[in-house]
Amino acid sequence: MSTTPAKNPGKVTLLSAGPGDLDLLTIRAANVLAAADILLLDDLANQDIVTLAPRARVIRVGKRGGCKSTPQAFIERLMQRYAKKGLHVVRVKGGDALLFGRAGEELTALRGVGIAVDIVNGVSSGFAAAASLGVSLTHRDHCQGVTFVTAHMQDHGEPDWRALAATGMTLAIYMGMSRIARIAATLLDALPASTPAAVVQHAGSAHEKRLVTTLDRLATDAAAAGLGSPAVIFVGGAIGEAVGFAVDSAARSEHGFAHAA
Amino acid sequence: MSTTPAKNPGKVTLLSAGPGDLDLLTIRAANVLAAADILLLDDLANQDIVTLAPRARVIRVGKRGGCKSTPQAFIERLMQRYAKKGLHVVRVKGGDALLFGRAGEELTALRGVGIAVDIVNGVSSGFAAAASLGVSLTHRDHCQGVTFVTAHMQDHGEPDWRALAATGMTLAIYMGMSRIARIAATLLDALPASTPAAVVQHAGSAHEKRLVTTLDRLATDAAAAGLGSPAVIFVGGAIGEAVGFAVDSAARSEHGFAHAA
Repeated sequence: MSTTPAKNPGKVTLLSAGPGDLDLLTIRAANVLAAADILLLDDLANQDIVTLAPRARVIRVGKRGGCKSTPQAFIERLMQRYAKKGLHVVRVKGGDALLFGRAGEELTALRGVGIAVDIVNGVSSGFAAAASLGVSLTHRDHCQGVTFVTAHMQDHGEPDWRALAATGMTLAIYMGMSRIARIAATLLDALPASTPAAVVQHAGSAHEKRLVTTLDRLATDAAAAGLGSPAVIFVGGAIGEAVGFAVDSAARSEHGFAHAA
Repeated sequence: MSTTPAKNPGKVTLLSAGPGDLDLLTIRAANVLAAADILLLDDLANQDIVTLAPRARVIRVGKRGGCKSTPQAFIERLMQRYAKKGLHVVRVKGGDALLFGRAGEELTALRGVGIAVDIVNGVSSGFAAAASLGVSLTHRDHCQGVTFVTAHMQDHGEPDWRALAATGMTLAIYMGMSRIARIAATLLDALPASTPAAVVQHAGSAHEKRLVTTLDRLATDAAAAGLGSPAVIFVGGAIGEAVGFAVDSAARSEHGFAHAA
């Protein structure tokens, strides 16, 4: 029995860490982690995930926080280097690896040099956020679907919010907290002020916080509640089915939330 | 130690069974199944999931196949009846419980009679389908997000395909195989003929089949490949990053696929 590099070519797994709580990992993800040689750990993932990978050397490649960010090209070179040594590299990503993040670039970089890569899916934070609110993302009385969209574009532009509003889909907006006022104002050009809206911060983790409100009050209420990144912002009729939506709307002033002008 | 109904009020868990393979369940889902008293089993879920619920009485409530469908109201009454007996009822749904399916109605029906309900997330088939294709759903060079939309509406209408196309999002279309030709034709009014498109049937299971093509050939190629429900249809630039997209486009005629008129 031998596991020398020559007989065991390396590979990379893009692994979805889910929204936070470790029991929201898939069984497949846990099995892959248990056998990992190298863990490249995103700072959006729960850092306790290392406990599931006892064999692995852990390399933290977060792009935020107090530290200097790790350039994407460097992460890609790390993956290539270790895989070429015959090791199983597990690139851990928060949520699902195929929704936002940089999986597209990483897949291209790995395939370009002939390294095998597979993908293990997981629960994106938008789903955990909907579970926290107790709503279907696609309640049949309200919509035919849901759009997961990032407010943070490569060229520093913005998605076409009016076009998105025109579809009637529930909107699940990622990375939007820093510009929530402008997003809400733009959506108000196309949607009624009373459109249900919500924010869930740290969805699917012990630190979860949530707010249910209406589109006209979204930015003000989110600020009053002290909500920040990382969070998912929801807008759409289906969100009106959230536990506490009617109560919150009626009782909002009692909780000290300011009303938007 | 007592677990009589009086001391142990019943509850319902809406549990996401994921796309098919049992190891794509979350660890939380497996734990909940192990303790379940009653399993209400959707026919879109992998039926082998019963092996994870050894204590449970299994009730099949599929809505398709050769058998007469189980009315939604009857399913809701079953959940209520067993929960009121103090039992833990687990309603198993394919994919993620909060994307399509009838979670919205079920949550309302349960809350209306004061029954506690919680939700365990999972992997929707659209994510497993993207993993099968080896693509990010939201490659930054192509789009800012992804829309999950059902082609099967409550009132037998259709979503506004042109409005969806105008957003520039990747489209992940569920329950669209029976009307794929009409969907593709409508999308062609708004999108170039060369827009990458794909179909993944039985994503995330041993029976998985996939097709990568362009929008103009989508319906014809899907028919030629014998693809049917359940499947996810993808349309959008990000799908052009799929493994084999360029190869398939060049070699399609060798595989005997007819070209769309």
